[in-house]
Parts: sequence; C-alpha cells; structure tokens
Amino acid sequence: MIILLKRGADKKDIESLRADLTARGFSLHESTGTTESLIGVVGDTSILDQSTIEARACVEQVTRIAEPYKKVNRKMHPENTVIDVRGHKFGNGSLQIIAGPCSVETEEQIMTTARAVKAAGATMLRGGAFKPRTSPYAFQGLEAEGIKLLLQAREETGLPIVTEIMAEDDLPLFEDIDVIQVGARNMQNFKLLKALGKLHKPILLKRGLANTIEELLMSAEYISAGGNTDIILCERGIRTFETMTRNTLDISAVSLLKQKSHLPVCADPSHATGILSLIEPMSLSLIVAGADALEIEVHCTPTRALSDGGQQLTPEAFSSLMDNIKKMAEFLGREIG
Amino acid sequence: MIILLKRGADKKDIESLRADLTARGFSLHESTGTTESLIGVVGDTSILDQSTIEARACVEQVTRIAEPYKKVNRKMHPENTVIDVRGHKFGNGSLQIIAGPCSVETEEQIMTTARAVKAAGATMLRGGAFKPRTSPYAFQGLEAEGIKLLLQAREETGLPIVTEIMAEDDLPLFEDIDVIQVGARNMQNFKLLKALGKLHKPILLKRGLANTIEELLMSAEYISAGGNTDIILCERGIRTFETMTRNTLDISAVSLLKQKSHLPVCADPSHATGILSLIEPMSLSLIVAGADALEIEVHCTPTRALSDGGQQLTPEAFSSLMDNIKKMAEFLGREIG
Amino acid sequence: MIILLKRGADKKDIESLRADLTARGFSLHESTGTTESLIGVVGDTSILDQSTIEARACVEQVTRIAEPYKKVNRKMHPENTVIDVRGHKFGNGSLQIIAGPCSVETEEQIMTTARAVKAAGATMLRGGAFKPRTSPYAFQGLEAEGIKLLLQAREETGLPIVTEIMAEDDLPLFEDIDVIQVGARNMQNFKLLKALGKLHKPILLKRGLANTIEELLMSAEYISAGGNTDIILCERGIRTFETMTRNTLDISAVSLLKQKSHLPVCADPSHATGILSLIEPMSLSLIVAGADALEIEVHCTPTRALSDGGQQLTPEAFSSLMDNIKKMAEFLGREIG
Amino acid sequence: MIILLKRGADKKDIESLRADLTARGFSLHESTGTTESLIGVVGDTSILDQSTIEARACVEQVTRIAEPYKKVNRKMHPENTVIDVRGHKFGNGSLQIIAGPCSVETEEQIMTTARAVKAAGATMLRGGAFKPRTSPYAFQGLEAEGIKLLLQAREETGLPIVTEIMAEDDLPLFEDIDVIQVGARNMQNFKLLKALGKLHKPILLKRGLANTIEELLMSAEYISAGGNTDIILCERGIRTFETMTRNTLDISAVSLLKQKSHLPVCADPSHATGILSLIEPMSLSLIVAGADALEIEVHCTPTRALSDGGQQLTPEAFSSLMDNIKKMAEFLGREIG
Repeated sequence: MIILLKRGADKKDIESLRADLTARGFSLHESTGTTESLIGVVGDTSILDQSTIEARACVEQVTRIAEPYKKVNRKMHPENTVIDVRGHKFGNGSLQIIAGPCSVETEEQIMTTARAVKAAGATMLRGGAFKPRTSPYAFQGLEAEGIKLLLQAREETGLPIVTEIMAEDDLPLFEDIDVIQVGARNMQNFKLLKALGKLHKPILLKRGLANTIEELLMSAEYISAGGNTDIILCERGIRTFETMTRNTLDISAVSLLKQKSHLPVCADPSHATGILSLIEPMSLSLIVAGADALEIEVHCTPTRALSDGGQQLTPEAFSSLMDNIKKMAEFLGREIG
Repeated sequence: MIILLKRGADKKDIESLRADLTARGFSLHESTGTTESLIGVVGDTSILDQSTIEARACVEQVTRIAEPYKKVNRKMHPENTVIDVRGHKFGNGSLQIIAGPCSVETEEQIMTTARAVKAAGATMLRGGAFKPRTSPYAFQGLEAEGIKLLLQAREETGLPIVTEIMAEDDLPLFEDIDVIQVGARNMQNFKLLKALGKLHKPILLKRGLANTIEELLMSAEYISAGGNTDIILCERGIRTFETMTRNTLDISAVSLLKQKSHLPVCADPSHATGILSLIEPMSLSLIVAGADALEIEVHCTPTRALSDGGQQLTPEAFSSLMDNIKKMAEFLGREIG
Repeated sequence: MIILLKRGADKKDIESLRADLTARGFSLHESTGTTESLIGVVGDTSILDQSTIEARACVEQVTRIAEPYKKVNRKMHPENTVIDVRGHKFGNGSLQIIAGPCSVETEEQIMTTARAVKAAGATMLRGGAFKPRTSPYAFQGLEAEGIKLLLQAREETGLPIVTEIMAEDDLPLFEDIDVIQVGARNMQNFKLLKALGKLHKPILLKRGLANTIEELLMSAEYISAGGNTDIILCERGIRTFETMTRNTLDISAVSLLKQKSHLPVCADPSHATGILSLIEPMSLSLIVAGADALEIEVHCTPTRALSDGGQQLTPEAFSSLMDNIKKMAEFLGREIG
Repeated sequence: MIILLKRGADKKDIESLRADLTARGFSLHESTGTTESLIGVVGDTSILDQSTIEARACVEQVTRIAEPYKKVNRKMHPENTVIDVRGHKFGNGSLQIIAGPCSVETEEQIMTTARAVKAAGATMLRGGAFKPRTSPYAFQGLEAEGIKLLLQAREETGLPIVTEIMAEDDLPLFEDIDVIQVGARNMQNFKLLKALGKLHKPILLKRGLANTIEELLMSAEYISAGGNTDIILCERGIRTFETMTRNTLDISAVSLLKQKSHLPVCADPSHATGILSLIEPMSLSLIVAGADALEIEVHCTPTRALSDGGQQLTPEAFSSLMDNIKKMAEFLGREIG
C-alpha cells in the first residue's frame, strides 16, 4: 500500500499516522521528493481500511498495490485447482457442458430435456428449482419438488446435477446435489458465501451483473476462506449501456480469470446474450478463450417455457451446437467429459 | 403488451399463439398493415413471460406497455404513503435526517456519535451491526452485540434506529429495531424480501449498484405483495464508468421515484459519492429534488473508523451541515422531524 | 508517478529503466521493501506514456499521482475564472439561464421563442443551427441560415447567442456568435478543440456521454493550452444502464468540477433527463449544487418541433420554472444575469 | 411505429395527431382495447421524430419497430458486401490481419515493424499519423510526415495501408491511403462521415466507446447514404464499470453485426483489452465469432514506443500469434489474405 501525503501536511499528523501503522506491525518505507512524499506500507495490508487512512488530514491518496485476494490467487497457488464431480473434471483441460432448462417445470419436461441433452453429449444437467425473478408475479420455481425431479433425472441419465441456491436455509435440500450454483444476484450475499465455505461440495459462483472481476475473486475468497476450495467461477454477462443483447458477454474475463486464479472457469452464453442466434458463436469463442465449462439453456419446448423461453435452445438446436463443440474440442485437443 | 409478428409468418403458428392467449383469458386486438402486423394483448400481462412469447417462430418482437409494478405504482394509489416511526413521519412532506456511523464499533463510539448527531438535529440513528464487506478479511460488524448497543443508544437519546439486515435468519435480532434496512447488495435477495413482506415494520430498501429504477420498484413490489406496505425507497448511487466518485448519484431517480410511486424516498449522499466535500452540496440538492429523508454517515473519530472512514463526517462537520439543511428546509416550508 | 517493480525483476532491466528516466530529467526516489520495490518519479510526468513504461519486463504497475490537467486545475489557479459575455458573467457567483429551442427551424419559431424566454427572464438564447443527429435521415439543422436567424433574434431581444459548432471549417460563420458550444459527441474532437484554443471567444464545452470528469478537464486543457482560457464546462448527463431517463444526470460532477477547476460550470437538465417533469426539480438541484449556469430547451410549440419535442418546455412552463429559479436564487443570494 | 395513447386522452388531440400523420402520407392502423388504445403508423417512419410525437398531450409512449438503418441492413441487402483492397478481400470469408504500431514514430521504426509484420504473415499495415490523445501534452503523431512514411513502407512491403483520419481538412493527405480509419472518438463526427460518404475508398469505422451497436450501424448509414458503401465495421471494446481491462471487448457485437448487416466486420483486441496476455486468446475467439479481419498493434520496440507501449506486441510475439491464427483459419477453412 502506498500513501501519498499532502503537500505541506502537518508533521504531527504524519507522525501519528506512522506510529499507528508501526504499532499494527507494518514496516514503512518513506520517500520524500521535492513535490511528493510517499509512505510505502509493507505487511498484510488486506486488514487496513483504505478509506479510513484517507480520512486523515495529512493524506492525499492511498493506492493498493497488492491484490486483495490470496487463497484464490494463482500467484499463491500456481497449479490449476481440479474439481472432480462424479468423475467429470473441471480444471484439468477437459471441457464440461452443463445443459438443461432455465426452470424445472414438470416431470415430463425435465425428464425429456435431460434425456435429450444426454443424448447430444452434455456432461451435466442444469435446471432451476429456486428461481430469482424480478417480478413477484412471475413463476418462482418448484422448489423442493424441483430438486426431487432433478435427482430423478440424474438417477435415469447419470448426469450430475447443477442447481441454484437462494438462501442458507435451503441447504438441507441440496445435500444430494452435485454442484451448488450461486446466482449473479447473490454473488455478494456474504452470509450465503460463508455458509457455502463450510461445505465439502463444489460451488459454481456466477459473476454479478455489475461486479468487477476482482469482486468475483473476492467472493470466491469468502468461500475459500471458510475451507471450501472447490469453486468454479462463471462469467454470465455484465450490465452495460448496450440494449441489443440482454447483457454484454465479457469474454476477456474468462481468459483473465484463468490467468489471475487457479480456479476453473465456466461461462454461460445463454444469459450473457439472451439471443438464440448468438449461442453457437459465443459458445465456440468461449472455449477458445479458455473456458473449462459452458452452461447452456435447453428446453424440450421453449415456446411453452414458464421462464426465458426466448433464450433456450430446442434439443435439435443443442444437438447441432454439440456437433460443432465436439469438432472445436478435438481441434484444440480437449476432451469433453 | 404488443406482439409484432414476423413478415410472412406461418398462419398456423399465429393461430396457435392466438389460441393460447385467448385460452389464458386475454383479449386480442389485431392490426394488420401493409408491412407490419401486430397483436395487442389486453389483460393482466404481468403473468406472461415475454421471452417465451418471443421464442415462437411467428414473433418478431414483444413490447410491454403496462408498468409491471402495481401495488407501489402511484397510478393505482395516488396518495403518498406516510410511514410513522415513533412519531417521525416519512412521506408527509417533512424531512427525516438519519445519521450515524458506518459500523457500530464500541459502546463509546456509538454513544458519543449518537449524542452528537442528536445534538446537531438528526431525527434517527443509523449504524451497521451486520456489515456486507467485499473482503472476508475486513471487519464484519459486531452483529448481535451491535444491535444491543444501538438499542442502548436509542434508550438514551430517543432516536429511532435504522440498521441493516443481511439474512432472514437474523430477523429475531431485529424485533426492537425501528426501521430495517436492506442494503444495495441484497436488493434482489428475493427470499429476504419475501420474509420482510410478512412483517409489520418499516423497510428502508436501497437501490442496487446496477439496478434500474424499475427493478427497485419491483423489489418494493415483492415486499408489498407480502402485505407490508411500509417501504422507504433509497437512492445511494449507481455503478458507472466514472471513477472520481465512488458511485454516481442518480438524483433524477429521486424525483422520478416520487412521481412513479406513492412510497417515500430517501437518499444516501455518503455512499453515493464517497467524498466528504460533496456531502453538503449533494444533501441540499437531494432535498430540493424531493427526498423525504437523507441517510448520512457520521463518526465521532473518522480516522479511527473500522470501515469507510473517508466518507464519514466528524460531528462538527455534521453540525455545520445540519445548519444549512435547516435553512433549506425552512425555505422550502418543510419541517425536520 | 510511482513505478511498482516486479518481484525478482532482472537488475539490468531496472538499471536501464532508471537510466532512461534520469536521462529525461526526472529525479527518482526508490523504496525497497521486503516484498515490494517502488520507484517514485518526480518531475513533469505528464509527458511520460504510462503504458510504455508498463511494457518493460521489470515493471508490475504504474500509478499516476499528479493530476494530468494543469492550466484548468484550481490548485494552479485558485481564483475563479470569470467570463464576461456582453455584460453577463459566468463564474462570479451570478446565475445565467440559457434558454431556447433544440433547433432553429423558422424565423417565426426562433423569434417567438426568443421573445418568450426573454420575457420569462432568460439571460441568453440557445438554438442549434448545426445539429448532430444519429440518423442521416433526421433534420440536420438550417446551418448558415440558422446562424443568421439567431443573430436576428439577438438584434431584437439583446440576448447573447450560444450555439453549437460541428467542424473547424464552419468557424467563419461563428464570428458574431457570443458563446460557441462544443457538443457531447465532439468533446474529444481534438482538432476542433485546438482550433477553438486559438480564438478569443468563450467556449461552452459539453461532457461526452461516456467521458469521465478527468477527460472533460483534459479537453478543456486542450483549449486552454492553445491560449483561450474562457471555457465553460457543461454536465449534460452520462450514459449508464438506466433506461427510464434519457441519460443519467451526474450532479456530483457539477460540485466536483467547481472544486477541481477554476472554470465556471453549466448544466443541461433537458438533455440529461429527456423528461419534462424532471426539468424543474433538476434545475433547482443543479443551482444548489453550485452550477453557474443552466441550459434549458424551450420551444414555442414543442409538438411541432423538428427534433426532441418531448424534452422542450413550452413558454408557459418555462415561465413558471423561472419563477421558482428566481426564488431559489434569491434564497441563495445569487443574482440572475 | 406504434403510438400508445393515454387513457382518457382528449379526442380532439387524437384527431389532430391522426390528421398530421395522414397529411404526411402515413397510413394508420388503430386498435382500441378496454384499457389501451394504439395507433400503428405505417410508412417510412425514419423521418418522424419520436420525441416530438411524445410531446403531444394524448400520447403515452412511442415505440419504433422498424430498424432505423436501411442501406446497411442485411434485410435490404442479404448478400455480403465484399470490399477489395489491392486484391485482399473483406467479407468473402477470408481473413485479413492488419498489424503495425500504434503511432508512426520514425522511418526506422515503421520500416522495421512493417517488414516484421509482413514476414509473420500480416496482410495489411496499420500505423497512426494523426493521433487522438486525451492529453494535449502527449505525442500527437507525425501527421503528413507519418503518411509519407506509411506509403514508403507500402512501397517496400506491398502491404496496403490503414490509417486514421481526424478531420475532413486532412483528406487530401489520404489520397493514396488504401483504407481510411475513423477512430472511436469520431464515430459520431457526422460532418466527417458525410465527407467520407462522397469518396470511393474503403472506410474502417470503429465503434465509439459508449456507442450502441445500432448507433454504429447508423454511422455507417451516414457514409452509405452519401454513396460510399465500402465500409468495414470495427468492434474495439466499450466503456463499462470494469477497470481490470482497458475496455470491455463486446464479442457478441461481432456476431450480431454480421447478422444485422451485410458489411464486413473487423475487431481490435489490442485496444479492447490493453493487456498483452489477452491478445492471443481474444484474437482467436474473435475469428471464431466471425470477424472478417483483426487489427493488432505491433511495435519493433514496445518499451520505446511514444504511445501505448504496454499493449503493442513485439515482432516475436506477433509471429507466434500468427502461427496460431493460421492454424485456426485452416481449421475453419478460411484463407488469410
């Protein structure tokens, strides 16, 4: 951390700042120029509140130089974290395709869709039982019944289940779920993150609509700090001024997360674009950018969907997409599954 | 809702769309032009999933024309909602000033600050017991102990307490709290909103960093739909590309919320700007824009604060700000308290 | 400027960096900690390319600490710049109200509107002769004829004229214009800024839709560097994710610009919001936030306007707004005109 | 265009609106429901000002349904536009790689870099002679001398030249240039666009930092409306809240532009990310997303660059990138050149 002092700052104020920092165990390296004076603070500065130091009369500006995330930082842990989900691996170079409907709606709907995505080559099944919806009047999910239907689909198809949790209270329902998803709106629900940090179960952590890459890593740090290091980061589009797409897919984030962190990275082209004709080009681009997994919405009958029908692929379209994903994976020397 | 049909769409597809909509009780008004054909859907379209209609082969585009919020819509309820908190009113034209520290840190800190803001003319006390922090290594709040200290401060000063909740589980601790605050990061924590909808207690609902005005109203609709209509909306700055301020204060939102909804509106210049020298001009501007209340951070010793010291006013600065707030309120014919 | 060196950086690389910087006349202040090493660069670092220093193998990160604007920086020039336009002053504490139509359309339209705004108390007349329009099929302005009509309106009403330039070529047409406006889309048209820097005429410089406060000041620095220091900065709303308003009025920018720079600051509530019912509350708030001037769109018959009819006030509405502006100015002890 | 009428609107107002629209040659299709009444306006509505219609007392809201761009719209012109630049084609499925330095600095620098990118397989040379820089104190380009050096590099290497224009006045200097680039900051410099519309020379039109996809298409429409249809659209990153990358690469825009328009699409991973380690993954992803061309910054000695050294590849790094681009092109069955 670098503290830039104000020109002509009171010497007593500076002395008091120095004393406080050394009392907390930091070493200080000072540099006094003709126009600027700096104090470099060395030690674990993640415990210092930047804004509170800026509140001092002698301080012009405080700049953090160390990255605030540690456990999830590749600098601290150069090897990829590899997460094993019923034999399917995230982070070892293989590619996982997580497909399924936006919401679990009926037994017939989820079973039909599960069979179809399995047949096309998906390696895991997604489906929402608890749905965060902007409107209280929209379909809110089947909840416990939805979880039961997902487990039934796993029973038949063998596909591991990825599904979203909305509150700590519901954790008991997720005991048999393979990967627990944290949705974009809960990325900074820190109570929930702390609870998930105590589990021994992989977490798929989606980036918030307006959260930076660093904030996503800090939310992963919350889970990691609790002891659970099986975290899959997920880019799903950010909110920008552009309105032609539902969100703006930040594909750079995928490559950058792989560089900054050792955690596996997933991407969700369905939510990122909200446009059917973009799902194929974006899926292939994301694989090239280094994604370890894709999460893609597929519904047996999109025109009857209770939510987001317009961005869910039909089984036929998904099957055709999988053909191209397989070719790309082969070209890149990556295995699906 | 207006459905624009694709040129040359298959007649059977259109017929099937018509049949589905009329079966669900909607009346249809069709308009066929030389280049465009439209179907106007009349009825309670808030239950229709726009994206799912767009999934149909015959549909080009769907436009909603009705506002999706009802209970909080001024069109449905033209009179201001007035909320009474121990005799202090939100929404009747008077002005409430909610002041206090970012976090409750110690008994001495909260008591000193509470006495100071009371003396300066604040009408309520704020202070965080549960703190949503980006880093797991930052101070997380005193939790239950913090709530206890806030109640002790109310005991002595008589100031009603406004403090933030982070999860439904903690509700029992908030039983004696006067106004429960939902923070920006939880604005779309729908489980929490549903739980708050069942209470008989005022809720201060802060706008999310990247949430639209309509989404804020929809979150208020969630609480309202549960039966609790005592909701204070709060603008606290949105995330934009600008980096010189912590967030961008959307002052238009204050006036617009007053026009679109009957609920009272608060604003938080401390979080919106993060810059001490902006708190006074923004506070006065927000009052002129129609805010029913302001929430302002004050700390007895900002340079010792465990969080956000740089945006907390000293008691002296707050007292000077209150002098100007009082003059402005008098000019506008508004009473403080 | 602070250069953070990479851990374990090659000593020869660091030596070469040091040599290059000292050869260019900078003094270096180094600070070597156990984990981080820094070089503080002292001198006029505005000529250094930050990105090029970051290209060096030994460099982790470069942080600028000095503000890159100088001539327009209040630190270098603590007194307000006061600009005199035919006896009306910007920057001396008085308030200028610049009103008129979006576009000059006909002689009758501009004369009627000019008389109306004069009668209501406006101190200057605005009106677009050259119109930047998103669509090539939209009305592009009367150009030279529009300038002539504006001068005719000044002749009759005595109101000084503010109108927008779109290219250096058109400068001869602006010879008799009182204040030349640079629109948001041209804020970084550096060729145009350089040309305006050579004039002896006030420039009203509007902030770009996606430009930071610092970039606005840097564009003012371009004009100032050429010798023309009569610059009025103008906040007119920025582009964000919010769609209910046309743009998001960044009212903090008004107060912050007054603190960071000695230049006068104007604001445009018409373009910032695009919503008639917001123009009055925003106008009053902007005055309270410290604006030296407001630019407000008024049209004698908005429903017949060739552009932006929906955000132009009728003469009656403007007159009623002026009544409230006058009361606020009186309360604040500020003179209009 | 669909006009939603206000409930209980005055019949005379509606009649006057109808009369005005029919007098301008539009046909109207009305639909009166129990709660909403609509007027569908049929004809070339691109000449109607939406805001002005919304100014009428009887109008609640106006929705455009037709896309406002015509000449550049794929619906009007289903076949790809193919642009031939000295035998290299944009838009016929082949891939163009435009490489070179940010700025032309010296004869040695541009000649060395040109030879290197040619050797590595680039098909065109880029280099800035006129540089739009945020600071007036930064290097502004060699201007006419820079153009001369670029032509000299073409003379030796045979690579066609792509370089940026900043003002119409400079057009004579661009007579021998192969492709004229319009930079992001000039995307809505409509005077310049109109001038370029009269040329017979390809234009590379970069998307503005905060401009929507539709606005980019409208700027292309300006050029096209003047008669010049040889336009290459270019995605180069947009401004968002994310600060870890210089801009946010909107890769969806590349695929979407190919679907919405018949014009070829280029992308610039150097400016979009500003991070060297992202240039390779983004380049390959962009090709997969459908880009017809890439523009990549390469400098013979980035650590000596006068601008943007940190995002310019060394010749060695570019050569290694080209190896991977060639493999990907071969896999996709696309020819480079």
